[in-house]
Amino acid sequence: MSGDLGPRVAISAAQNFTARFTDVDIVLVGNEQQLLTFSSVKKLSRQRISILNATEVVAMDEDPLHALRHKKSSSMWLAIQTLNNNDTDACVSAGNTGALLAMGKYLLKTFPGVERPAICKAMPVEQGQTYLLDLGANTNCTPEQLYQFALMGKILASSTNTNPRVGLLNIGTESTKGTEVIKAAQDLLQDDSRLNFAGYIEANKIFTGEMDVIVCDGFHGNVALKTCEGTARFIAKKIQAAFKRNWFTRIAGGIIWPLLKQLRTELDPSMYNGASFLGLQKVLVKSHGNANKRAFMQALIVAREQVIQNIPARIQQELSNESFSSQQ
Amino acid sequence: MSGDLGPRVAISAAQNFTARFTDVDIVLVGNEQQLLTFSSVKKLSRQRISILNATEVVAMDEDPLHALRHKKSSSMWLAIQTLNNNDTDACVSAGNTGALLAMGKYLLKTFPGVERPAICKAMPVEQGQTYLLDLGANTNCTPEQLYQFALMGKILASSTNTNPRVGLLNIGTESTKGTEVIKAAQDLLQDDSRLNFAGYIEANKIFTGEMDVIVCDGFHGNVALKTCEGTARFIAKKIQAAFKRNWFTRIAGGIIWPLLKQLRTELDPSMYNGASFLGLQKVLVKSHGNANKRAFMQALIVAREQVIQNIPARIQQELSNESFSSQQ
Repeated sequence: MSGDLGPRVAISAAQNFTARFTDVDIVLVGNEQQLLTFSSVKKLSRQRISILNATEVVAMDEDPLHALRHKKSSSMWLAIQTLNNNDTDACVSAGNTGALLAMGKYLLKTFPGVERPAICKAMPVEQGQTYLLDLGANTNCTPEQLYQFALMGKILASSTNTNPRVGLLNIGTESTKGTEVIKAAQDLLQDDSRLNFAGYIEANKIFTGEMDVIVCDGFHGNVALKTCEGTARFIAKKIQAAFKRNWFTRIAGGIIWPLLKQLRTELDPSMYNGASFLGLQKVLVKSHGNANKRAFMQALIVAREQVIQNIPARIQQELSNESFSSQQ
Repeated sequence: MSGDLGPRVAISAAQNFTARFTDVDIVLVGNEQQLLTFSSVKKLSRQRISILNATEVVAMDEDPLHALRHKKSSSMWLAIQTLNNNDTDACVSAGNTGALLAMGKYLLKTFPGVERPAICKAMPVEQGQTYLLDLGANTNCTPEQLYQFALMGKILASSTNTNPRVGLLNIGTESTKGTEVIKAAQDLLQDDSRLNFAGYIEANKIFTGEMDVIVCDGFHGNVALKTCEGTARFIAKKIQAAFKRNWFTRIAGGIIWPLLKQLRTELDPSMYNGASFLGLQKVLVKSHGNANKRAFMQALIVAREQVIQNIPARIQQELSNESFSSQQ
């Protein structure tokens, strides 16, 4: 029901998604009357899409704790509950991130031993993609939490990569650099032979692709992700303005436009939409608030992939083994 | 003597600098014999450039504390000392940042009341520039330190802007967002009527130009600065690769090349080279390690401007007034 663009985006994405993946059914959770202005029950049913009515909505700017306490009839709450009832296998939302995290933790729980879930997202890099976590769920982390993030990120990355290289975000690569928390986390990462730990990585190297997983606390990850978005938008604006300088640049811009458009599509954050809340007992995926249809579809693909890969159970297994427990 | 490209860059920059600014003399501090392979004493003297011989060099990867203890004959040490003797008004180095900071603090001292110096740099934004600090001198900051950074950044920005808007970097703009340190810093910033405090700012808004000064701890600032560098390099590489796809894109690339080159020059970090160590009693400027001649010249310009603007004395005045002292 929420997200910046409203439910229409989610419905179109769901329709395209069930058309493409015949192994998936969709439950739209929201105000039935409003949802049916976009499509009919009959048409939706033919597309393997049903509706679960919800009378409330969590606002995008609502305080997460307020939502957790007072919005038990909201589409977000009911959608997450369908996971607990085993009516669904994954939940995707474009709504309030904080509320989604709070309800996710409350309703789905983390696995025993997992102190905090982490938000994890794939970023486009020079070759392939790199998973960055945490992206904002935890503003302060202990070394043990960063270590848990590394193990969880490794599980996610290992669906496409047999031995993912794991890096720890720091402001330098020398062993003396960084906070005490980061130095202690490095020791934990180094000591676990299950991890292909490749050392510290600085933020200017995130996009080189030399790491498959980059671990950081939620504040650092959030700053990195948003600086990247801001820089890309700034450069795109500068390029557009440069093309408007005079008739020659306008013509040149016209010639080059299809090329830049294609490039933009390749680097488009929407192609990498779908942030996962790792450490929860079920698959919960956050779509960007202003995701368009294609971007929302990408978030659905991320959710389906995690169900197929059995990510939550594999995380549970990884974190419950002896080597990890001894760190507790 | 150091920096990634060696002393030749600094010498050429000094020569261009004294030619452009007739109110400045330069002292090159380094291995005299090596420096004279690039120019003669006679020629340098005509250009108002002299040499102060130094027998040692601080290595780029040397531990700052090791340098502080054992490199008292290094070019870095001697150069900073010329400030203390009042032989010079400003010192510019492309060397080891940590060592420069350590020696700067030890030799030049901070003003009474200033707990820690901050590294501050101008970033290109949609309109004009925004000063970001701290960029890595302090990995953990107290609210009071962040508050001091705001006052110091304001002084620097006020040379070009009478009432600079000051923002505090956070992972959201709602009052509930962020760490306890950031929330406490916000209270201090709000309470000081000398500051035009404009609230929290997220990292994706750094480049919109809605703030003239953005305050953050050194870890966050370092991640933001380096992510920006990394994103820009990544996009530039993608654009170059796109132009090489086929004969049509190669021709299009040839047509558009001068435009992109001009754009690149405008956004070139070297045009914004020169990070200041604010809070020290003298002007100390860090040039990027791999600065070219033009970039090094820019760092010299930053240093000259701060001497003219009398930045250290104005910071001392701002931080010693009653309103500030009462916060201690």
